Formats: sequence, structure tokens, C-alpha cells
Amino acid sequence: MSGSTLGELFRVTNFGESHGPAIGCVIDGCPPGLALSVEDIQPELDRRRPGTSRHVTQRNEADAVEILSGTYEGLTTGTPIALLIRNTDQRSKDYGNLLDTFRPGHADYPYWRKYGVRDPRGGGRSSARLTAPTVAAGAVARKWLAQQHGITFSGWMSQLGDIAIPCVDEAEIPNNPFFAPNAAIVPELEAYMDALRKSGDSCGARIEVRARGVPPGWGEPLYDRLDADIAHAMMGLNAVKGVEVGAGFGCVTQKGSEHGDPLTPAGFPSNHAGGVLGGLSTGQEIVVSLAIKPTSSIRLPRPSIDRANQPQTVETHGRHDPCVGIRATPIAEALLALVLMDHALRHRAQCGDVQLPVPPIAP
Amino acid sequence: MSGSTLGELFRVTNFGESHGPAIGCVIDGCPPGLALSVEDIQPELDRRRPGTSRHVTQRNEADAVEILSGTYEGLTTGTPIALLIRNTDQRSKDYGNLLDTFRPGHADYPYWRKYGVRDPRGGGRSSARLTAPTVAAGAVARKWLAQQHGITFSGWMSQLGDIAIPCVDEAEIPNNPFFAPNAAIVPELEAYMDALRKSGDSCGARIEVRARGVPPGWGEPLYDRLDADIAHAMMGLNAVKGVEVGAGFGCVTQKGSEHGDPLTPAGFPSNHAGGVLGGLSTGQEIVVSLAIKPTSSIRLPRPSIDRANQPQTVETHGRHDPCVGIRATPIAEALLALVLMDHALRHRAQCGDVQLPVPPIAP
Amino acid sequence: MSGSTLGELFRVTNFGESHGPAIGCVIDGCPPGLALSVEDIQPELDRRRPGTSRHVTQRNEADAVEILSGTYEGLTTGTPIALLIRNTDQRSKDYGNLLDTFRPGHADYPYWRKYGVRDPRGGGRSSARLTAPTVAAGAVARKWLAQQHGITFSGWMSQLGDIAIPCVDEAEIPNNPFFAPNAAIVPELEAYMDALRKSGDSCGARIEVRARGVPPGWGEPLYDRLDADIAHAMMGLNAVKGVEVGAGFGCVTQKGSEHGDPLTPAGFPSNHAGGVLGGLSTGQEIVVSLAIKPTSSIRLPRPSIDRANQPQTVETHGRHDPCVGIRATPIAEALLALVLMDHALRHRAQCGDVQLPVPPIAP
Amino acid sequence: MSGSTLGELFRVTNFGESHGPAIGCVIDGCPPGLALSVEDIQPELDRRRPGTSRHVTQRNEADAVEILSGTYEGLTTGTPIALLIRNTDQRSKDYGNLLDTFRPGHADYPYWRKYGVRDPRGGGRSSARLTAPTVAAGAVARKWLAQQHGITFSGWMSQLGDIAIPCVDEAEIPNNPFFAPNAAIVPELEAYMDALRKSGDSCGARIEVRARGVPPGWGEPLYDRLDADIAHAMMGLNAVKGVEVGAGFGCVTQKGSEHGDPLTPAGFPSNHAGGVLGGLSTGQEIVVSLAIKPTSSIRLPRPSIDRANQPQTVETHGRHDPCVGIRATPIAEALLALVLMDHALRHRAQCGDVQLPVPPIAP
Repeated sequence: MSGSTLGELFRVTNFGESHGPAIGCVIDGCPPGLALSVEDIQPELDRRRPGTSRHVTQRNEADAVEILSGTYEGLTTGTPIALLIRNTDQRSKDYGNLLDTFRPGHADYPYWRKYGVRDPRGGGRSSARLTAPTVAAGAVARKWLAQQHGITFSGWMSQLGDIAIPCVDEAEIPNNPFFAPNAAIVPELEAYMDALRKSGDSCGARIEVRARGVPPGWGEPLYDRLDADIAHAMMGLNAVKGVEVGAGFGCVTQKGSEHGDPLTPAGFPSNHAGGVLGGLSTGQEIVVSLAIKPTSSIRLPRPSIDRANQPQTVETHGRHDPCVGIRATPIAEALLALVLMDHALRHRAQCGDVQLPVPPIAP
Repeated sequence: MSGSTLGELFRVTNFGESHGPAIGCVIDGCPPGLALSVEDIQPELDRRRPGTSRHVTQRNEADAVEILSGTYEGLTTGTPIALLIRNTDQRSKDYGNLLDTFRPGHADYPYWRKYGVRDPRGGGRSSARLTAPTVAAGAVARKWLAQQHGITFSGWMSQLGDIAIPCVDEAEIPNNPFFAPNAAIVPELEAYMDALRKSGDSCGARIEVRARGVPPGWGEPLYDRLDADIAHAMMGLNAVKGVEVGAGFGCVTQKGSEHGDPLTPAGFPSNHAGGVLGGLSTGQEIVVSLAIKPTSSIRLPRPSIDRANQPQTVETHGRHDPCVGIRATPIAEALLALVLMDHALRHRAQCGDVQLPVPPIAP
Repeated sequence: MSGSTLGELFRVTNFGESHGPAIGCVIDGCPPGLALSVEDIQPELDRRRPGTSRHVTQRNEADAVEILSGTYEGLTTGTPIALLIRNTDQRSKDYGNLLDTFRPGHADYPYWRKYGVRDPRGGGRSSARLTAPTVAAGAVARKWLAQQHGITFSGWMSQLGDIAIPCVDEAEIPNNPFFAPNAAIVPELEAYMDALRKSGDSCGARIEVRARGVPPGWGEPLYDRLDADIAHAMMGLNAVKGVEVGAGFGCVTQKGSEHGDPLTPAGFPSNHAGGVLGGLSTGQEIVVSLAIKPTSSIRLPRPSIDRANQPQTVETHGRHDPCVGIRATPIAEALLALVLMDHALRHRAQCGDVQLPVPPIAP
Repeated sequence: MSGSTLGELFRVTNFGESHGPAIGCVIDGCPPGLALSVEDIQPELDRRRPGTSRHVTQRNEADAVEILSGTYEGLTTGTPIALLIRNTDQRSKDYGNLLDTFRPGHADYPYWRKYGVRDPRGGGRSSARLTAPTVAAGAVARKWLAQQHGITFSGWMSQLGDIAIPCVDEAEIPNNPFFAPNAAIVPELEAYMDALRKSGDSCGARIEVRARGVPPGWGEPLYDRLDADIAHAMMGLNAVKGVEVGAGFGCVTQKGSEHGDPLTPAGFPSNHAGGVLGGLSTGQEIVVSLAIKPTSSIRLPRPSIDRANQPQTVETHGRHDPCVGIRATPIAEALLALVLMDHALRHRAQCGDVQLPVPPIAP
């Protein structure tokens, strides 16, 4: 994998800028014969779409996806699937100031140092808007994984700023704008966000994603481990500063007798591993947790510099998510699906479709 | 590139099993003209070598490295550098039992499910012994990065089980077997490990690694971000369950006004970013933290199953590290060096050697 | 990288089907700061455009290209450049018969065996129409290579069926529909094609392409040699059955004393090498020759089978090039440019921008 | 693929220099459970071994291969297979002159221009000796392809300098040092080579290789076509200047009605395609032909230059093959096997093990 492409065998190549004419991706390596239409992809895009509550950016994008290639009469043909999303709500204001000064905590500065030139409109390439093609590609992976292996995904916000969100009921996730698995806590979250927005500041969040039904044995033992590729995908998402699998940093204070999940004829009674041992899936749930930093574009004034290295004060106005974590859940699910899809194909490349003759063990 | 190869342009392909004839790696893509001899590599291997204190495995391996190719009269030629380390202290006992039962928390089980066959001797391919070639390759990267860019690395244990280890003095790191930057705490660590060893159990650890002097602008904005590749490399290391960059999970409870590091004409006065913004280096220190789980091979009896899915009790004897985190510091440094080396070459591929005409900013 | 992506560092990912909504490509890895607009790309597309003479397919496509991303204010930003070409002259007739029977010499049959499903409309993915995005990407590479290194390209048809076309004057190439460097022979070529078209048959061709000004030392010694990557690119073009570099198959009857180009202080007085030795460029002209087979879609009836393995007679009507070689010249130039662009970046990744201190030798 | 690695899923990474301590390769991605021992590999190495007749280099190398990893109790485990061949007959004479002057037709010159430093001993990295690891890896691929798919390979010399060698009986190939499928012509070949050796000159050759039993549908339609990857592998072999598949350059003068192989219920009655259509295998024999240039290291004096760009006369003494084509047959077979192995795995990654429900057609 390299640059703007994710995956070795199910390869997603992402393109576009926030305020350019369009964003999208090309998926190469999708198995043929999968029933696929816009109806399979649009619902996932709608889950991360901006403008759906007062707690996220008010940019109004339908994120309508067009399938340009790779299907015929509703089936994938095995050739590249190009997905296109036109940008429609760009604002044609003057971005000149953003070209000259750098927002603290923002990609502005290193972009300028790397490329010497960049598209500043709406964050250009570094905008979270570029996660939409990832979500679209993830929808394709999810469909294949569900059909071939019965794999399902879920994800939720497990912390918003200072507020921990215990998982009470996954069925509640689609019922609130925070992807919170917990109806009772929603008013508190709303109040927190309202105060935050008023303050002109932003906050961080923690997201948890899970995959159920992954067969044992996916992954590779060294370097390209399943958990390594998950960490790569998740840390590659805008604003992520930490990734955990299973017990995560909690394992530091565990003893080996406590951390190692026993095996029983009926399966694993615990899951400190988070579904991965030695870089390979175990058949347990894959459990991943992410730390998402507070948005760097805030209204509060902050000290910075300009391109001439002179001190400046920066305030960011315009439309921004005060907590990018709020819309991160469907993106993190998509990334997990893309990694698993890739390893599903890598596994059958090396080991074949046909399961090795091993006795069943309950996962 | 994939599987047992790390890197796109500075590619390290790892091979070997713990008790096979040899382990090693092939480095492809190293720039020509770098002065390189065994003396550049062996000291790093010695830092992770087993048997150097009572707190690590007592296996006695010199880890003597041979350079098989890629140099002529002491300079790299630009062709593949093959590094070979012969195994010398394998024990020829019966591993039959390990083939039939699975250690809780160990790669045994998913290996069997994936491949249907594996080398069980000393953990085979899943042994931490396979980190030696990574360290050897890392030494090559470190030398080039130091010469070309003045980049230096440091790493230490920041927590051992329940004991947090404040960083007091980095100069103390080589003076104790724990890589602790803190002389005063060493007796406590020794006592902790002695008690742990007696108990037959194992413990986790937290490691911190840093790179200083990385120029701004290394990395790629989307998917193959610098932090994503760091997370991939670190989570690909045996026993790692969590990775943080900069503030890491601490960013969840930070506000944007607090997390975003200001820019001043004299540089960044803080480093919550950990040296990476938008997937690109900023010129700040790269700061990475790892969670290392407790060793799965412990003497205490635990419930498990055998290949016929029958219940068994497993106890692991033989030579094992009670805390694999103790020797993890030089490995994590090597991984960070390998990722930076790869991005150094990727950067100059796309953007050239010659720095873009940007005014200096103190890092 | 693999499948529908060409290149390691200047990566072109191609998508689309002949009669789908659109074709295009994403270029990842382009250096920043290159002035780029549609005007740089469209002229190359126009050179391969269908419908420009009676000797090629009469399909009417403007091949108007849209740049969807990767530029800002007329400069490349270093991020992916997505190029889109809408299909406009698809014919909505019934392709049912093509789904059931297989054209001799056509990709129909192995597509069906591989994928079990395919887009049959106008050849779907196997159509030569998919070379348009390659040409568009090649135009970007050509511009950078010209600006950075002064590299230029030329190509021509050196044989049409039985008629050898001696290179008399390269300036004549754009003055006839055959890309023939020879004005005198054009009437003979026209007559040949008119008779061929009337007969309902098709013919082969030989194309020669050259790059001038390539610095010495581009390429890699083993496996990914410069000539190997050129062969890969050329043999990957529709209908190509043979590739030669320099003396090509003529070297079989040469002696070493004859084949080996002498070196003199003023340069190489001959070029049997075709500009590549040991997989690396020498500074001589890169000289490549291609064999292009006759089009498989012909009006003449031929024996074949259907999907039930029953004998059938196949005749192909519709719009086809009676000699796909006629429009192959700009495509082969584009492929050569893409390979050189990739190796230009690979070279500077490993060896740097700054030339090694070697004395000049005239190429 | 990149640099010294061949293949995407069955990846062979080659290392070593002609007169360094050792040469070898690492194979990553081999399926588990394949019975593999030195006895499977050594016979193929012996076929290309130097010193076996007076017509090839008299360097005496046993080419004894050691399997360093990747097998356990005689079965591949799915982990990297490292193969090591120690060099034993290096000659420790002064190579200083070769560092200063360049042999016409040799990689000397571009190596120096690329790297500024190189290993000159015996040609260093550019020596044909580096094909030994390729042959060793090819033996692994051949065994798997034979067991899983019944694929077999054959190859022969079809022309030596001016002497065409008609294929009369493939059974004769192992009975003469030329890999000639024709006993009657051997005396003529011997006389030709004896005269050539006496003259101090060298000659070219043409090699033909075939694979039988390849299922239809292996390959990818665009860029990474099966024939493109074959061309890449073959043109990547030392001294190759041309590659043909099927009719090759003969297709230029064929009509479409002649070139396109008919399909019948009993299979293809002809094979102008050489077994590949649209980049995918058809089920026919894969037929490949190579042009191999005359060796550049010859005794005859030739004009050249030195590193100071001053005119020099170069004569090459030492041990060299007067026709590198003589030992090229087993190497070309190995390369064809490696490409097919890679596409076998790529095919089952995307399309699965289980054949699609298509009716049989005789190949």
C-alpha cells in the first residue's frame, strides 16, 4: 500500500479536495458477482453526512454517490469500481488568509513545508470530508463480508470530552446524533455540546468499533499483522492520536494469568486479546478503540505565525465540527471493514477458500 | 509490499524461526555510499540480546550478525543488504505437547487455524526472537538518518506493571536492565520482577520512544500518514496492544484550545501533537507510546483445549521473558527509525532533495 | 501495487468500461508545483481520439478530460490527480449475442472463465478505449520529464501489415493518420487500408517509440529493470504480442564485438543497447519496438463456440478499428513516459536529486 | 513489486553479489503444507550450474542450497522461505582495472553513473550468477503448480547465433549442453561454439519456454496482464532484449482472420495467442520466446573510456560464458513458473478457489 491507497488486494485509492469539484475513490480487486448498487452505499454515507444535527458542521452536502464503473446489470464484474461524489456546497470566499497563517494543531503548516503549495479551500486534502469515499468503499467491503462470512460491524462513541458513555444498548446508537449506545446519557451530551459550541472551543472523543463473526486465522504473523493493519487504518484517520486493540493500554497493569484468554471447547470466555493473537484473528470479536483529538479549527484566538515566520493571532470561522469524533463512528467501522476485507482476500490467496481440516471451536 | 516486508522504499524482508538454523532480513532500497559494517549493527543487537540479566530469558545467543551482500569495501552499494544471524542455543527437546495444546494468549491457536501446520519449536515464527533482524535493519536506518539529517532516537520503559517510571534522566537508560530513565526506581523494579518470576506469572509494560531532528513535511496526508505507518510498525511488534502519538488517549479530555500546539517564531512551545499533524511531521519531536501485554508463556496452570477441542490444563516451562517489555525499547526505536527512513525516501521521491524555499521555523 | 495500477511511485489507477458512464484514472505521487491544466492533457488525448480518419473506428468521442482533484490555481499540489472522461457515444443496442458467443482472438472467452460475469458493451473493460486514461496520465508525466530533465518522446508506425515504413522524416508523423514518418508511403498505406476494410478483415502493425534525454542510471538492476518495466507496460497494452529494446531479436545473430556499443569521450557512436544496460539507462536514446496483432473483431465469419460449448459461427459488426496499431503510437509514447517518470522518482528516492560527482560523458 | 522483489503474492526477494560471501532469496507468501526439501530445489539449480561443459564458464560452484526457514518437518509453514547459496569459487585477483574502465555493452557504466559505487568483483550484482536464486525459487513454484494444477514446463534453445534449431524432440533437451530439442544438430552447435570461443568473441541466442496445463482466466485485464508480467520477468533477465508471446512479431504480417485462434468444442486448434488473450490465460499452452544478446565480456579489444572520460582499450579475460543463452533455458522456465504462481494466488484471492460454474472446454 502506498500514499492514498489503502489495502493490498482490496485496494481503495482516494482522491479529492474539500472544495474541489468532486471527491471519490477507485476500488480495485473486488471479487466479481457481488450484487452492488447505489442503495448499498448511500445509507453508510448518510450515517456520516454533515448537517444532520446542530452538533456537527452545517455544510449541506447530499453526498450522492455515482458508480462509474465495475458493475454490469447490478453485479460487480471484478474490474475497478470508481465511486464519485460531487461537492455541491463549497463557499467561494477568500481563503487568502489561510494561505498565509497556520492554525495551531492543523495540517496547514506541515503541508506547506512538504509541498510548498496546497489547496487551502476548506482544508483541501486534509479535510475530514475525504473520509466520505472511505465510507463508500467500506460499504462494499461490508456487503461482501456479510454475504461470504456473516461478519457484522458495530461502533459507538464511548466517551465525549469528559463524559464517559457506558454501552447500555447498541440498539440506541442510530437514535441519537452521537452514536451513543445509551439513551439516558443523550441529554447530558447535548448540553455539553451546546456549551462547547457557545464557548468557541472543541473537544475530543473516544470511539469503539467491533467486528463479529471474523473467522480465525486472518492476518499475517509479522509486520503486516491484522492488528497492525487495523492500527494503520485507524491512525490514518483524521484526528486520531491513539489506537487500542482489546485490553489496549489496560494490559500494562494486567498479569499474564489475567490477560491471556482461556480456551474452552465452547469458545473463549473472555476477550482481552480483542480478537487478535500473534497478528492473526482468533474468532473472537475484533475490538478496537480510538482516541480522537479536538478539532483544530476553533473560534478562540490563538498564537501562531505566518509564512514569513512573524507572530500572528489566528481565529477560525466558517463551518466546522466542534467534535470530529461525533461523525467518526461510521468511518471507523468502514476502515475496520476495509482491513478485514483485504485480509480475507490475502488469506484465501495463500491458504485457499477451503477451510483447512481443523475441528470446530466455538469462538 | 506485504506480509513479512516492512516499508515501501526502504524495504526490510524478515525471515526465520526461533529454533530454525538462522534468522535474518534483506534490506532493499538502501541509498548507496553509506559506510556500513558489522560494528554499526552489532551494538543495537546487543541492546536487545537475551540473557543479559536475570529478568529476561536465559537463552544464550550471541546474535552475531553477518552482512552477506550489499556492501563493497565498507560502503553500501545500493543493492540488497542481506543480514544473517545464526541460531545457536536451540534446545532439542520434545515440542510435541505444544503442537497439541494451545497456550492462552498465545499465537499457537490462530497459527494452527490459519496454516494447519507450524513450526512449534520455541514459538517458531511467532517468537520475539524475530525482532532481532528488525533491530539490525533499524541500525542501518539510524545511521543514515543521523548522517543525512542529524536525527537521533531515544526510548525507555515508562511503566512496568503497576509501577510508573517517571523520566528523570535519559542518561540512566543504559545503566540498568529495564531501560529506565531513572536510577532511583531501579531497586523497586528489581524487587517487582523477582517477585513476579517467583510467582510464575508475567506482567505488562509501557514503552516510550522518541525521534529528534525530523524535518517538517515527512509523511503522506491520507491513509499512509506518518503516524499511521508508525502505528502499523508498532502494533506489528509482538505483544503490543496499544499505540499513542503525542497526547494519545489523553486528547479525549482535552479542549481544542489546549491540545493545539501554538506556533511561534522560535518554534512550538508544546508538543501535544507528538510531532505529527495531518499525517505529516511538524519538526517537533516524534513521541510514541506503546502498551505491551504480559507474556503468554507462564508457569501457572491455565485452562485450554487441545486440537481435538478437548479441555486441557496448560503450564509453560522453558526459557521465557517474564516481561517482554523489558527488551522492547531498542526494538521500538528500530521500528521508528525504519518508518522514518522509509518516509525520508518517499519524501525525496516526490518532493526532491532540495528543500523548498520556505523560511526557517525553530522546531 | 497491482492490477489496474501502473507504477510504484507515480501510480496511475485506471477505471472504466467502454460503454459505461465514464472512464478515467487517478494519478498518485505526482510531484507538487507542476503547472498543469486541461490544455496540457487534451492534445495528447486528441492524438489517439477515434473517428479522426476513415481508417479508424467511427465512434464519435470528444474525449474531453476533466481534472477533478490534485491541482490548485493551476499547479499540482502533490495530492492525487483524478482525471475523468465521460463516454458520450455509446450505442444502446442488444449485446446479448456477445454474452453467449466468443470472438476468436478476443478477451471474451477468458473474461468469462475468470469472472463468470462481465460487461459486454463495446468490449467492456477489454476495449482499447481504456487506453485514453493512460494517454492522459502520460501527458502529465511527459510535462514533468520535459521540464525537469528535457526528455522528449517520439513514436511512429514502422510497419503496417506487409508494408515496412522506413523512417524518413519524423516531422511527417503528425501529417498523416498513420503516424508514418514518411510522406511518400502514405498513399500506399491508404490503399492498403481501404482494401483491408472492404475485405472485412484486419491487420497487424509494428510501432517504434523513443525517449531522448534520459539521464544515465535510471532503473534497478534486478527484476525491476528499466527495460523490464518498459516491457511490462508495453505488453500490457491491448493487442501487443512482442516487445524489443534496441537491437531486439536482431541481437540473436549479432556477435558480442558487434552488439556492444563502444564508449567514447564524445558518447556512444551506436545504440544496439536501445539505451539500457544491466537494467539501467545509459544516456543513449531509449528505443522500443512493439508488435501489435490484428484486431479480433472482424466482419468475416469464423468458427467459435457459445457458453454451452456448442459450435457457432461468429461475425462482428459495429464500429471497430481494422488496425488497432494505427492509434497505438501516442499510447506507446505515454506508456514509455509513465515508466520513465516512475523510475525518475525511484531514482531520486534512493540516490537523491543531486547528481553524484561523476564526470560528464556525451550520450 | 519493486526493486529486487518479483511478484505480488508469491514474492521472491533476491540478494547477493557474484563474489560476495553468498547469494540467495527470501520467498514470502508460499502456501502452507507443501512438501519441500533441498531435493526439490537442487536439481533445478544443477540444470543452470556453471562448469558443466566446455561451452560455459569454468567457474566451479556446487550451488548447494540451504533452506534457512519456512519449513517444518518437510512441509512449508506459510512463513518466509529463505534460501542460501554460499559462493565458493571466487577468485581473489585485483579488480581495480574494472573499476576504472567500462566494458562496452556491460552494466559497468550505468551502475557507476547510478550509484557512484559498486562491487566490481565478477560483475558484482549484475552477474548472471544472480539468476541462481531465481531458479531456486522457481523450483518451489513449479512444485506447487504441478501438485495443485498439473502444470508442467518445458524450454529449449531455438536458435544459437546464426543456427536455427528446429524442435524435433523435447526428450533430447537434457541430453546435450545446449538444451537443444534436436540431437542431430548438436555437432553443428558444438563446432560453432568451439570456433566462437577460439575467436574471443561471443554470440546471441533465442530461447523458447512453455507452460502446459494453465487453467483459463489467470491474469488481470489491464496493466498487470499475465503477458505483461511475463514480459516483465523475461526482460528482467540479464541480456534479454526481446520478448514474444505466441505469434510475437509474426503477428504484424498476419490478418485477423488468420491470427485469431478459432474456438471449438474440443478446444483451440491453433495457438497464435500463445495462451493469453486480453491479459488472461485461455487454457492453451503459454508460449514465450526470448532474444538473448551476446555476452559483453569478451577477449577481443574494444574502444571504451575510463572514469576520467579518457579513451581506453578494453579486453576482458577471466571466466565468462561465451553465450549466456546456453544456460538461460532453466532460468526462463523458472521465471515463467514464478509469474504463473503469482497469478495463481492472485486469481484465487479475487475469484476464489472454487471454479466458477462454467462448462468445460478442451484447451
